[in-house]
Amino acid sequence: MTKQKIPYQIRLTEDELPTRWYNFRADMKNKPAPLLDPQTHRPMTLEALSQVFCTELARQELDDTTPYFDIPEEIRQFYRMYRPSPLIRAYRLEQALQTPAHIYCKFEGNNTSGSHKLNSAIAQAYYAKQQGLRGVTTETGAGQWGTALSMACAYFDLDCRVFMVKVSCEQKPFRREIMRTFGASVTPSPSTETAVGRAILERFPGTGGSLGCAISEAVETAVTNEGYRYVLGSVLSQVVLHQSVIGLETRAALDKYGVRPDIIIGCAGGGSNLGGLIAPFVGEMLRGEANYQLIAVEPVSCPSLTRGRYAYDFCDTGKVCPLAKMYTLGSGFMPAPNHAGGLRYHGMSSSLSQLYHDGYLTARAVEQTAVFAAAETFCRAEGILPAPESSHAIKVAIDEALRCRETGEEKNIVLGLTGTGYFDLTAYARFNNGEMSDLIPTDEALEESLSQLPDVSDAAF
Amino acid sequence: MTKQKIPYQIRLTEDELPTRWYNFRADMKNKPAPLLDPQTHRPMTLEALSQVFCTELARQELDDTTPYFDIPEEIRQFYRMYRPSPLIRAYRLEQALQTPAHIYCKFEGNNTSGSHKLNSAIAQAYYAKQQGLRGVTTETGAGQWGTALSMACAYFDLDCRVFMVKVSCEQKPFRREIMRTFGASVTPSPSTETAVGRAILERFPGTGGSLGCAISEAVETAVTNEGYRYVLGSVLSQVVLHQSVIGLETRAALDKYGVRPDIIIGCAGGGSNLGGLIAPFVGEMLRGEANYQLIAVEPVSCPSLTRGRYAYDFCDTGKVCPLAKMYTLGSGFMPAPNHAGGLRYHGMSSSLSQLYHDGYLTARAVEQTAVFAAAETFCRAEGILPAPESSHAIKVAIDEALRCRETGEEKNIVLGLTGTGYFDLTAYARFNNGEMSDLIPTDEALEESLSQLPDVSDAAF
Repeated sequence: MTKQKIPYQIRLTEDELPTRWYNFRADMKNKPAPLLDPQTHRPMTLEALSQVFCTELARQELDDTTPYFDIPEEIRQFYRMYRPSPLIRAYRLEQALQTPAHIYCKFEGNNTSGSHKLNSAIAQAYYAKQQGLRGVTTETGAGQWGTALSMACAYFDLDCRVFMVKVSCEQKPFRREIMRTFGASVTPSPSTETAVGRAILERFPGTGGSLGCAISEAVETAVTNEGYRYVLGSVLSQVVLHQSVIGLETRAALDKYGVRPDIIIGCAGGGSNLGGLIAPFVGEMLRGEANYQLIAVEPVSCPSLTRGRYAYDFCDTGKVCPLAKMYTLGSGFMPAPNHAGGLRYHGMSSSLSQLYHDGYLTARAVEQTAVFAAAETFCRAEGILPAPESSHAIKVAIDEALRCRETGEEKNIVLGLTGTGYFDLTAYARFNNGEMSDLIPTDEALEESLSQLPDVSDAAF
Repeated sequence: MTKQKIPYQIRLTEDELPTRWYNFRADMKNKPAPLLDPQTHRPMTLEALSQVFCTELARQELDDTTPYFDIPEEIRQFYRMYRPSPLIRAYRLEQALQTPAHIYCKFEGNNTSGSHKLNSAIAQAYYAKQQGLRGVTTETGAGQWGTALSMACAYFDLDCRVFMVKVSCEQKPFRREIMRTFGASVTPSPSTETAVGRAILERFPGTGGSLGCAISEAVETAVTNEGYRYVLGSVLSQVVLHQSVIGLETRAALDKYGVRPDIIIGCAGGGSNLGGLIAPFVGEMLRGEANYQLIAVEPVSCPSLTRGRYAYDFCDTGKVCPLAKMYTLGSGFMPAPNHAGGLRYHGMSSSLSQLYHDGYLTARAVEQTAVFAAAETFCRAEGILPAPESSHAIKVAIDEALRCRETGEEKNIVLGLTGTGYFDLTAYARFNNGEMSDLIPTDEALEESLSQLPDVSDAAF
């Protein structure tokens, strides 16, 4: 193919917006292990899952054989308001690093929610609306997911009830306000609105809350209110499915210019962004058609892939959700207060865990001071203020580009630029003031939380 | 022309990025009155202006006859990182309003600085670099301009010294941090770094500062430090010239689909966004080729066009800058604390003032509670959180669209969506909590500040 000049932003047209999501589980020989009922340790049925999730979403969750799902036209209409998202050729960063490598960033921050979370939020809201529900409940920590869901619910005129970790609510009042502006109700958790919230408040009157508690409150609200279901922004296979739109667009944009990626890098919290970004590429690997170097990047403070155990665990600290087999640090693991709120989850999506286990995916853990230094380099070169989460991928992309400078290799590096850091400037301030530190969990702390894994030796499937 | 389906986002390609800025002053029969030296009341010379501004920028400032200026390739390269900016067809808003009108939004918020200010910041930084300067100084109130300039200076490796109104610095720590992340120094004003700052601190020890004082500090720093010049983000004709890229792209995008605008609406603070948006359209009007309804929207709390006087006035409260003939409320006018920080300027760009005086431009003043209600309607429909400034244009666009619902007219309405409101959520919180009010200056207050206008009856030009 003749070499065309690659623009700063490779943009697909609206007509090139993907029409189907890709479910890479269909191409996996070793399927992810099924979700288990936390009581019986038997695989979750569609009926049981549908008590908590919308029925169509429960169906998607359980389906590991259908490779493609049509994206409903209503969702595509919404996508068109901010998609296809740009694939940015980071010319200035390459220049700053003096690297022969070519760096491409799939930028998902160009929407008001500020991240890729919107891709799944709108899908989940759509299916809730289709099912005739009145509303949905969810929890949010850093606030990206809650913001995305609020936008999606405003679009479909659904009630949106967000339980926000109390301490986040106080530390990030702007995040709360943006959700309210979209019409969502935002309740600091623990609250007096639920039995579980009241119980926790009685035991720990001054608590600032936790994600686990907020999940429990959101689930209780969903199952005790007529016409409500609970929705979740990561970890689940349905979410990875919706996020495949990221990878499909990336693939199409690269194909336009005949670019074949060598390395694909994404930050990994619950795994939804990474899973979506690599989807079509790992599909080729699973089918034996191609090979890529896929790198998951996580913080050293919450190293589920690099230091966790591959085992069944609770998805939430409240232990009300199904059990999933995944790389986990233990549901009781309390990560140090790393500023990348979206990467503080104790486990990893079960499908990505299986890919990692089978060697399709590699992982690296990085320190947050190095991550913010990379973010600043990126920001000054490319004029985009990245989210701390995304900056984990930037850090490793820069490492790889510098390695290319040593070897002279002209590698194509693709990274998932999941969102913007407008609401993370407190973290940037700590970095700018030299007040940021790196907290690495001790082996003893990990052993302690891993010793609490549930015993599923009676599981039958 | 056959009607094509218009996409949600009309996007030009990089190749369609304008190659020239358009200077509509060249087509004005009644030229804007010249800037006057505040001491001698004689027109400012290139030499005098070049003491404060970069020489090339001073030249652009004085040139009211050259219709087009080539955009240097280095600036176009930077533009390509975020331009051409999208022209959004607000289908969902139209639907929500049940209007036959078609609403188009030229969205300038899709860059990290969050507003159109970057279009001129990069140009000013470029010319400073070309002149071999070490750095530039400026002031910032709300912070959009300071952020844009910091980004631009990081790109050209220029020192950037921002004087930020002390009270804004404290109220908007995030804005300060983003500038620091781009490597700028941000000094709360008044400071002890300048003679004027020290004098003010001595007289008013606890003052929170003012834009006027910050300008004076920035100008003093520029003229007393070797290799520095002062730069300004609005009001000046050079800034309106750079911002013409907005209108030129808008024009090109509409032309692609054969759309002829009927109404073009922009918020007006110092006038840079509005002037840039209407540039090619008012050019046609000035040349007698077409007619459009052009509407400037300002807050009732700072109504320079609708209630000001067309006269020579100081551009700054410190009275160190040249005098400009403009619609003004008096340089000592203290607007009520409206949340649209970018619209709190006492005057209006001299070229827009002349257009308004000559009837090419109309103006409306709107109340901020109505503005935030419009912002919320827009946000829920279109999924973009608008800046309070931009929301002034949205308010009037909605009014016009509702009028079309009455009359059945299928008008094409274009509005300048100048930026995002991520850093304005304190204002949204006040609105969401029902704590926002509308403060309209009394006739007496206006008379009082207008009575302080300088006497330029000895001016000779």
